Amino acid sequence: MAHSEDTYDIVIVGAGPVGLLLSLCMSRWGYKVKHIDNRPVPTATGRADGIQPRSTEILRNLGLKRAIMAYHPAKVYDVSFWDPLAEGKGIHRTGSWPSCPRFIDTRYPFTTLVHQGKIEKVFLDEINKAGTTVERPWTVVDFANDGKDEDYPVEVSLKSIDTNVITKVRTKYLFSGEGARSSIREKLGIKIQYKDPISYVWGVMDGVVRTDFPDIKTKCTIHSDAGSIMVIPREDNMVRLYVQIASSSDPDWNPRKTATVEDVQATAKKILQPYYLEWDRVEWYSVYPIGQGISERYTLDERVFLGGDACHTHSPKAGQGMNTAFHDALNMAWKIHAVESGFANRSILSTYESERKDIAETLLGFDNKYAALFSKRRPTAGEVGSASHTTVAEGGEEDEFVKTFKESCEFTSGYGVAYKPNVFNWDTTHRAQSPLFGVPGIRLTAGRVFTPATVTRLADSNFVHLEQEVPVNGSFRIFIFAGKQATTKQAIDDLAANLKKERSFLSIYQRSDIKEVSFFERDLPHSKFFTLCLIYANDKNTIDMASVPQILKDYHYHIYADNLPDVRVPTAQFAAHEKLGIDPEKGAVVVTRPDGHVACSIQLVEGSGTVDALNAYFGAFATKPLGQDQQSRL
Amino acid sequence: MAHSEDTYDIVIVGAGPVGLLLSLCMSRWGYKVKHIDNRPVPTATGRADGIQPRSTEILRNLGLKRAIMAYHPAKVYDVSFWDPLAEGKGIHRTGSWPSCPRFIDTRYPFTTLVHQGKIEKVFLDEINKAGTTVERPWTVVDFANDGKDEDYPVEVSLKSIDTNVITKVRTKYLFSGEGARSSIREKLGIKIQYKDPISYVWGVMDGVVRTDFPDIKTKCTIHSDAGSIMVIPREDNMVRLYVQIASSSDPDWNPRKTATVEDVQATAKKILQPYYLEWDRVEWYSVYPIGQGISERYTLDERVFLGGDACHTHSPKAGQGMNTAFHDALNMAWKIHAVESGFANRSILSTYESERKDIAETLLGFDNKYAALFSKRRPTAGEVGSASHTTVAEGGEEDEFVKTFKESCEFTSGYGVAYKPNVFNWDTTHRAQSPLFGVPGIRLTAGRVFTPATVTRLADSNFVHLEQEVPVNGSFRIFIFAGKQATTKQAIDDLAANLKKERSFLSIYQRSDIKEVSFFERDLPHSKFFTLCLIYANDKNTIDMASVPQILKDYHYHIYADNLPDVRVPTAQFAAHEKLGIDPEKGAVVVTRPDGHVACSIQLVEGSGTVDALNAYFGAFATKPLGQDQQSRL
Repeated sequence: MAHSEDTYDIVIVGAGPVGLLLSLCMSRWGYKVKHIDNRPVPTATGRADGIQPRSTEILRNLGLKRAIMAYHPAKVYDVSFWDPLAEGKGIHRTGSWPSCPRFIDTRYPFTTLVHQGKIEKVFLDEINKAGTTVERPWTVVDFANDGKDEDYPVEVSLKSIDTNVITKVRTKYLFSGEGARSSIREKLGIKIQYKDPISYVWGVMDGVVRTDFPDIKTKCTIHSDAGSIMVIPREDNMVRLYVQIASSSDPDWNPRKTATVEDVQATAKKILQPYYLEWDRVEWYSVYPIGQGISERYTLDERVFLGGDACHTHSPKAGQGMNTAFHDALNMAWKIHAVESGFANRSILSTYESERKDIAETLLGFDNKYAALFSKRRPTAGEVGSASHTTVAEGGEEDEFVKTFKESCEFTSGYGVAYKPNVFNWDTTHRAQSPLFGVPGIRLTAGRVFTPATVTRLADSNFVHLEQEVPVNGSFRIFIFAGKQATTKQAIDDLAANLKKERSFLSIYQRSDIKEVSFFERDLPHSKFFTLCLIYANDKNTIDMASVPQILKDYHYHIYADNLPDVRVPTAQFAAHEKLGIDPEKGAVVVTRPDGHVACSIQLVEGSGTVDALNAYFGAFATKPLGQDQQSRL
Repeated sequence: MAHSEDTYDIVIVGAGPVGLLLSLCMSRWGYKVKHIDNRPVPTATGRADGIQPRSTEILRNLGLKRAIMAYHPAKVYDVSFWDPLAEGKGIHRTGSWPSCPRFIDTRYPFTTLVHQGKIEKVFLDEINKAGTTVERPWTVVDFANDGKDEDYPVEVSLKSIDTNVITKVRTKYLFSGEGARSSIREKLGIKIQYKDPISYVWGVMDGVVRTDFPDIKTKCTIHSDAGSIMVIPREDNMVRLYVQIASSSDPDWNPRKTATVEDVQATAKKILQPYYLEWDRVEWYSVYPIGQGISERYTLDERVFLGGDACHTHSPKAGQGMNTAFHDALNMAWKIHAVESGFANRSILSTYESERKDIAETLLGFDNKYAALFSKRRPTAGEVGSASHTTVAEGGEEDEFVKTFKESCEFTSGYGVAYKPNVFNWDTTHRAQSPLFGVPGIRLTAGRVFTPATVTRLADSNFVHLEQEVPVNGSFRIFIFAGKQATTKQAIDDLAANLKKERSFLSIYQRSDIKEVSFFERDLPHSKFFTLCLIYANDKNTIDMASVPQILKDYHYHIYADNLPDVRVPTAQFAAHEKLGIDPEKGAVVVTRPDGHVACSIQLVEGSGTVDALNAYFGAFATKPLGQDQQSRL
């Protein structure tokens, strides 16, 4: 029995990492979300992926990091390599390197390992607070983008698994976060491309072990004459062991080959000799086949989308499943928001597939290349060292292994994600043109994530992490690095004056509820699409607040002094400016997208040029014409 | 009706900060605790003191920091000073300085402001987990150290306020954490000494305000022609205002003088002119008289003790109430533990009063001196700057104000607490004598707190805060700074060999349950009184674990590489060693007390000398003779 159709902004199927992050953003931003999952309860055991450094940043930006860290997760800073000794005399450590080497500028140079159910719980608690409830066990039985309703073009049939009652709803978007066996992907007829022709069967076992193996609390790859194993530390004294049970390259390949707990334990004991290994208890054990595949499309109509494992699967070695899912979801969320809130043209939705599919392909490519290189030979400590500490190749060619290692670390950390030039990621081919785009010497790249920097917030003198100052609120972040106040005063005044003009991006997209904005609003006093931050290269007490233009002072909690030391630029007087390559005498404006990736950098100049460039940038995808040029064209 | 008498290790009266911290430690360490409070429920509103930087360290060391920070407290990094403009034209900012300047090496250079009830809840949750329940509303009606039971010399009569039923119990210790009006102190006939002859009546109001006063989120002291006010930011957009309503130096002094909410609001509005000030709501308001007093004794018999506000009261200006209470409780806890667990002579309990009363007196002395100096004249920005950044006086004399400011900041931050030489805090007059005491060049002082340092933990390659690595477990912490492994190998081998000798402190105080110690025990594998940490001045991957002696390897999670950069010593190769003034070629041993204060430093040498000195140090207060000397004397 179907009752009259309810309408939703989005129907999300699946409450794994991708569905949860998307649901949280949409719910917090005021959208009406229908969120279902076919499991009666959240994940109970196992299924932990590591949270990579960049994902930790995202989780903190969502306000979830503290709750996750309260579970006391294991943190993996290093990977150790163990290899067979000659003549069957056991194994020895042949190398060790940081999983997130120092050339990657992050506050979280580690992988966080915690049971996926705990991560899900943290998300579910916040989703509830934002007014959405995940309904379980429910499944999607049918859907069609029939366009019968202009506003809600997609009809979705959902079934309660408990009662078999089917409910039809209409929605603006349908999102499949169903995992590798996505029924929505199947119904759309989208194929999976297998990048690596080899498939594997893996066994994975979580448990509490006693051993004298010295690296049991470190991520290890162990090769021995008795086989290979991967060790991953977990919270609560647990250890995860991955054992490869079969490979399609085996002469007796059987994708249904399996192994018992006892088989895996016996193998693990043999591999670890001469060290002993005993189990106090086994918490979870599973055997599953896995291949390296990518969905050929992430959407066909930009109404029904796929994300997470529905789009890409790979071996657990890379530890990327949950992280890629988080990135997919965040990318999806702010783009739907930009369109549905009336800011961006619908056409920008195509960048979800183009950006995220490209990243998934690059990731799988790395995974293959790295594995191949790795099986060829073992790196020396010297090579690893140079890869760990060198920030730029010092002339001459880098060793192929070191190069791949570095790229791979960047990639698996999440900081290597580099979206290609498009409507959001400015390069010289972008529709917006101005000689002010591209600040000379700047060490930021459009499409890549913003670099961490610590500054003093003037409102309360707190030392804060600039990259975290704007929460994930769907807004673009405009960082005005103002340099020295005495030098840039005119440029800042001119910037403010041009922001106030009636055709500026800030004026055109002023909040409709501007008169009712709370006195305590920190981030979005003028527009829901932009948060402005103003950073002076001055000592805190020398900044003259009286001369800061009012339109910038409205971002009371987003005015900062760049006056704190940074161990990465120990001689810098203005560490944030100098680390990012911004001249403190000149300043610069850096725009980041709502997901923290750099959109463009613009020179800070006197006159209207800087705001003209901002108008041109946002005008490239905004629904309304912006700035002087467009005005004169009207 | 009294039933047959139950026995307890300690009866704690009062569940404010001092009682809670003491109760938590004793409960976690396995003692039987009776804990009562006369309030039916925990603190509901108001009564927030700031948590000072050193207290934040302690709370983290107790594992409570994350739960407290989850309340999103306000953090105060700065104090601003506002003074009247000429001719009644309102107020202007005349100065601003860090509440915890950079010369204080702390990870938490701020005061954390959160409602006391929330802090209490965090403690209560952990106390419950440790098996103790705070019983309410109960009160103490009588007590006597009658010695009728050798093991439980104190009889205490407790009354349930709900039922009026009186229960008599016997206990080893009775602790009053009752607050300023301690009935136990009164019964003991201990007087309060008033340091400052002036008493005050203060009004305090928490509320949500709207204002254009720019420093509303900063701690401010505002003097105006209309009166004075202190502003303290709070969590949840709240602001606390302190207004002095009366002083015994007023010509019309009346200790019962009061003021209504409206009076205080009207005064505050006048003081803040030309800025506007409006209340959204008032959360809490109270008027109370306060004087600066210290209890003449903290105990008479070393069985019945006082702590917290029962011992010292002062104006809210210093923001020290809760912090002094935490320090009192921690000092009390480990000393009772040391005695009751059979490690230390009972006589050491006298150091609770001598150490803590001295600190309270110093604190009140500072408070007076600082206030006097402050009312005399306003410091200039230059003076504040030099006080903020100078680590040592650069020849010549420091300005009196700067000197007092620095000492005062150190004191209020908690890092100025410097216990005087006694049986725990080694100096040349200590009973333990060896030419190895006192490491040349070391930048640590016995009686003061250990300096923060970041190192790599070898077991899992995590970057960790060395000063936090040993939890508050009642044990002394022995930091073996091993310097370069190649250079100190013999010294480390000799140290290990001497630790293993049967009369070493580690052997004599071996755990009685040594055979049943858990495989996963991290901190106390050998003795409940010592946790050993081994820190090498080597790159992580060059440390040869095979050559580390087994007795030190038993502290698997406490072996570290000093290989991480530190912004305070940017050119150091081995930052922890060099920051502490320890020569990486020589190493050194640093002992801290269970509360993190430095006990002594000892040179690391080949032969038995280093362990001989440790035996001598611990032998000064241990219940059993230690080491070679004592052995030969037997």
